[in-house]
Parts: sequence; C-alpha cells; structure tokens
Amino acid sequence: MMPEPVAVDAMGGDHGPAETVAGAVLARRARGVPVVLVGRAGAIRAELARHDAVGEIDVVHAEQIVPMTERGAGAVSADQTSVAVGCDLVRQGAASAFVSAGSTGAVVSRAIRGLGRAEGVLRPALAVALPSVTGGATVLVDAGATADPTPEMVAQFALLGASYAQLVLGVADPSVGLLSIGSEPGKGNRLTRRTEGLLPGLPFRFHGNVEGHDVLAGTVDVIVTDGFTGNVVLKNVEGTVRAALAMVARAGVAGPEALREVAARYDPETHGGAALLGLDGTVVVAHGSSRARTVARACEVARDLAEGGVVTRVRDHLAVEPVR
Amino acid sequence: MMPEPVAVDAMGGDHGPAETVAGAVLARRARGVPVVLVGRAGAIRAELARHDAVGEIDVVHAEQIVPMTERGAGAVSADQTSVAVGCDLVRQGAASAFVSAGSTGAVVSRAIRGLGRAEGVLRPALAVALPSVTGGATVLVDAGATADPTPEMVAQFALLGASYAQLVLGVADPSVGLLSIGSEPGKGNRLTRRTEGLLPGLPFRFHGNVEGHDVLAGTVDVIVTDGFTGNVVLKNVEGTVRAALAMVARAGVAGPEALREVAARYDPETHGGAALLGLDGTVVVAHGSSRARTVARACEVARDLAEGGVVTRVRDHLAVEPVR
Repeated sequence: MMPEPVAVDAMGGDHGPAETVAGAVLARRARGVPVVLVGRAGAIRAELARHDAVGEIDVVHAEQIVPMTERGAGAVSADQTSVAVGCDLVRQGAASAFVSAGSTGAVVSRAIRGLGRAEGVLRPALAVALPSVTGGATVLVDAGATADPTPEMVAQFALLGASYAQLVLGVADPSVGLLSIGSEPGKGNRLTRRTEGLLPGLPFRFHGNVEGHDVLAGTVDVIVTDGFTGNVVLKNVEGTVRAALAMVARAGVAGPEALREVAARYDPETHGGAALLGLDGTVVVAHGSSRARTVARACEVARDLAEGGVVTRVRDHLAVEPVR
Repeated sequence: MMPEPVAVDAMGGDHGPAETVAGAVLARRARGVPVVLVGRAGAIRAELARHDAVGEIDVVHAEQIVPMTERGAGAVSADQTSVAVGCDLVRQGAASAFVSAGSTGAVVSRAIRGLGRAEGVLRPALAVALPSVTGGATVLVDAGATADPTPEMVAQFALLGASYAQLVLGVADPSVGLLSIGSEPGKGNRLTRRTEGLLPGLPFRFHGNVEGHDVLAGTVDVIVTDGFTGNVVLKNVEGTVRAALAMVARAGVAGPEALREVAARYDPETHGGAALLGLDGTVVVAHGSSRARTVARACEVARDLAEGGVVTRVRDHLAVEPVR
C-alpha cells in the first residue's frame, strides 16, 4: 500500500512558495517522501512549473494565509488558511502528517484544535532536537505546547521524546534527563519532585536530574520538562547563541561572515524542526527562515514520525484509558 | 558613625585565601569598603602579611571549610564553617553583609537558615546581573532561591530586583519584564498569568511579558521569574555561551586565546556576583573562580545593597504584615 503523503504548507515561511515548493520537490525526488502541497493553487503551480513538477505533485487549494507575525489563535480560527486545510487533510486521513514553516504558535494552536489528542495521550508536547557540543543532538521536550502539565503528562512527554530520539535521531536506547535545578534526587520544584518518581521503570534509560548547562552539553539524548520552562529554554538558547556570537564579532577575533556560518550550523531547527507529538496526527514546524533543504528534511522527519507510530509507547506504558 | 564592615569568607572559592584576602585588601584600600575576614586565622594572617595588612583588617576565626563541591544543606549544618560564622556576624549586627566565593547552593542554604527573612518579605530571591549585548546588564531575579513562589512572592522579587538595578547598576528608573512564553498579555503559565496583574502600579516601569531571547538582549533592566525557571535560565546561559564559543573554536575562525577573553568578559558573575535579597542581612555569592578584583567588586556590591536598604520598597509597597 502506498503511504499517505505528507501535506506541506506552501504559504508558510519567510521565503514563501519558492522555497517550500522547492523543498517539497526535493523531499519527493531525493528522499522518496510522497508529498502534497497546500495553499494558493496558482502560486504553487507556477513554482512547480519551474521544477518541471506540475502533475507530479498534487495541490490542495487554500485561499488564506496565516501571517508570519500571527502567534496565537487569532487569524488562525479562519478555516480556509493553508494551516487549517493542511491539518484537515491529516484529520481526514488524506495525509500522514503536516509540515509548515509558518509561525510556530499559530500552527501549534490550530493543530491542537484541529487534530485532537491521540488515544491515551493526556496533552501534546513540542519536541526540538538541539545540536550539542559533542556533535550529536539532544531532544528538548516539551518546548512549548503545554505550559502547566501534571507529573503524569511530563512522564508521557518523556516517552514521546524518547520515541522521537529513536525514530528521528536513530538513537537505539535513549537516555532521558529531567530538567531541574540540581542534579541530586529531590532537587527542584514541586512538579519535578513529583515527576522524578514516575520516570524509572519506563522504557528508556532514566539518567536522573539534569540542569540548564546540560541542554547543549550532550549529557543525555532527551531532556524532559514542562512546556513553560522548555519554551523559555529554547528561546534562551537561540538568544544566547546570538549574543555570544555578537560578543565574538565585537571583540574582532572573527569576521561576521565566518560567524554567520557557525550561527547557521547552530540553528536548532536544522535538525528537523519542532515536532508536535501526541496528537492524532503528526505535525512538524520548520523554522520560518527555512530554505528548500530544511523543508525537505522536515518532510522526512514528519514521515518517519508518522510511520514509526510515535505515540505507541505512551499507549503501551502510560495510557490514561484502556486501549480498546 | 563608621558603618559595620563587610564580612568576607576567606576560605571560599577555587583559589582559596590567596585571592579572597587580596580581594578584601583591595576592597578596603582602593574602594573604601570596611571589611573583616572570616576563616582559618593562621592562613589568613599569612596572606595579610604578604600585603603588609596584618592589623589593618580584622580576622574572625572559623575552623571548618565548606567544600566547593558541597551544594546543599549537608556539611553546611556545621556551625563552625566560615560560611556559618560569616552569617552569624551579620545576624549579630557585627557585619553589614557577607561575601563568599563558596558554593552558591551551600551559601544560600546557610544564609536562609542563619539570617531569617527581613520584615515584610515572604521569601528571599537570588539576583544576578547578566551582561547584555547592548553593553549594559539585565538583573535576573529569582535565579534560584525560591523554586515554588506564589504570585505575591514574584511581585516582591520584582521590587527587590528593581532596587538591585538602582543600587548596584545605577539605573534611575528601571524597567521590569515578567519572563514568559509570549510577549502578549495573558501568555504564560498559571503563575505568570496571576503575577501579571500584580506588577502594574508598583514603583518601576512594568514592561509586560518578555521571553527567553530577551534575557541577554537588553530589552529590560530587570527580568523577574520564579526561582526554578530563573536557575535553569542562568545555568542555560552559562552552558550556551560555552557551547557557542566551542563551536566558533571548532570552526577555526578564532583562536582559543581570543575566545577565552570573550568568555571571561561574558562571565555573568563579574557584574557583582549573585545577591541573596530579602533576608535580614545582605549576602553576595561571588563566582567560585573569582580573583581578587572580583571579590573586591562583590564587597562593594554588598556594601551598596546593605547601605541602600534593598528591602525598603518591599516594606513600603508589598509588605505581608503591617510595619510596626
């Protein structure tokens, strides 16, 4: 059976259809990912023509565009945006996953409303793979979907993050650390102290508590936390890398050109974008500045997560209702 | 009236009495800060002799040393450590403040137990001045003293942070941002949503919500948050600067020598150390790697905070009990 295609939001991202369509073509031709493009049909077909790909990739028309400045639920309530139509395709089973380079906040809001939670999952979580100094990557989960989770939800996030590390990063037996403010057991806040006891015994190597300086140090494969702390950390990493490179540039020890290259290599989202896990359907948000290659990589990640059944472990180990 | 001296922990820090005693001498001679040294009298006098300062600076003997690896309340329960004796001097009114380059966790634990809270203050907060890309600094408060504060406590932390910005950084009319996961009002978790309403009307410019990327961007003078998030952010900044510079070094665009200089300039604690505010006495924790100049700067900060009455605004605006 041919797998359902990955739906790609042609209108999202800073560079518009030129890069998203090129990314979809690349995903299909170079990486064997079946895709369908969602957005303004005329604009999409014009871009497909430049790649000689009209007729090769299906197009689903959506009239409206979510502006990149949109961050919450505002304009997203419109049902004819490319984001809404893309999520609908996944809900209806016409697509296996949805990829967008649109505003993370807007895509996440719409996906949660449009797709609903997977059976057995309490709340969705956003997973981002951050490049670590050791050359590998660490999955940060939840990076912003659920701001006030219970300990049970955080334990589910850990399972989702471990599955992401296996399916996307290829880590056979991932280690998981609980983000806290001291590495000793019992250190932390009420949430971490209550979560600590739920993690041993789950199907991953529980490392214990990790701290803020472990995020990029490669200490563990997965760092699990609540969506408030995770989102603050994600944005803090981005801002701090920017600040540190600005300090280096100002000190005059390296040229801006060379530093731009380092900054690009460091962009957390180049490792596959932010994956919204735990919904009844897979959604991957690529960085707004994504070029074709990054969009193609996000399509591959979305396909792997969808095929791999990322929520299976949650159902097997921490389901909130018996599986029928 | 001669102000009470600042008590300096001679035994704390990676470099031992050599640097702490030199720092105390510098504080007194170059910056006019009266000081008293706490620790093993023999070792301290030997160092004082090298600066021809025996008899010029008083010494209070304390037999025990808190190891730098000590992070919690363990060995700190001993009453004869230089940390315990230093806190006692402040409690008895024999010192105006205590400065240590010992383990932050150990000093904070002991100070909270030994000094008690200032009248009207619900919980203490740790304030750290982080250098921002604009060349100024932003005060992060609470950086780790109170992991699970109520909204009222966070509002007090904001007042303490604003006082710190005035007294230590010389900012006449500080702006304060509430750390959250979206700049729009109402974005965040339960704690930030409940805290948001308490901040307007307090005696500082309330900027509204700020995000993780604002921490080093110079967006506001003070960023207020709970001690869990603040401690994760502080350690994440340190780890991310280290990781970014390692990436630059690996890319070969700048030599390790030049980068070490950038890293040193970036060390958050060089701006005065971490100040524990809201206790009945001022405590400043300098970085463990502090050299004499950093210790001297911490003494100056401690003196300014103690003289400035950092808790006055809390008593005036958000006291929990009527002032008698």
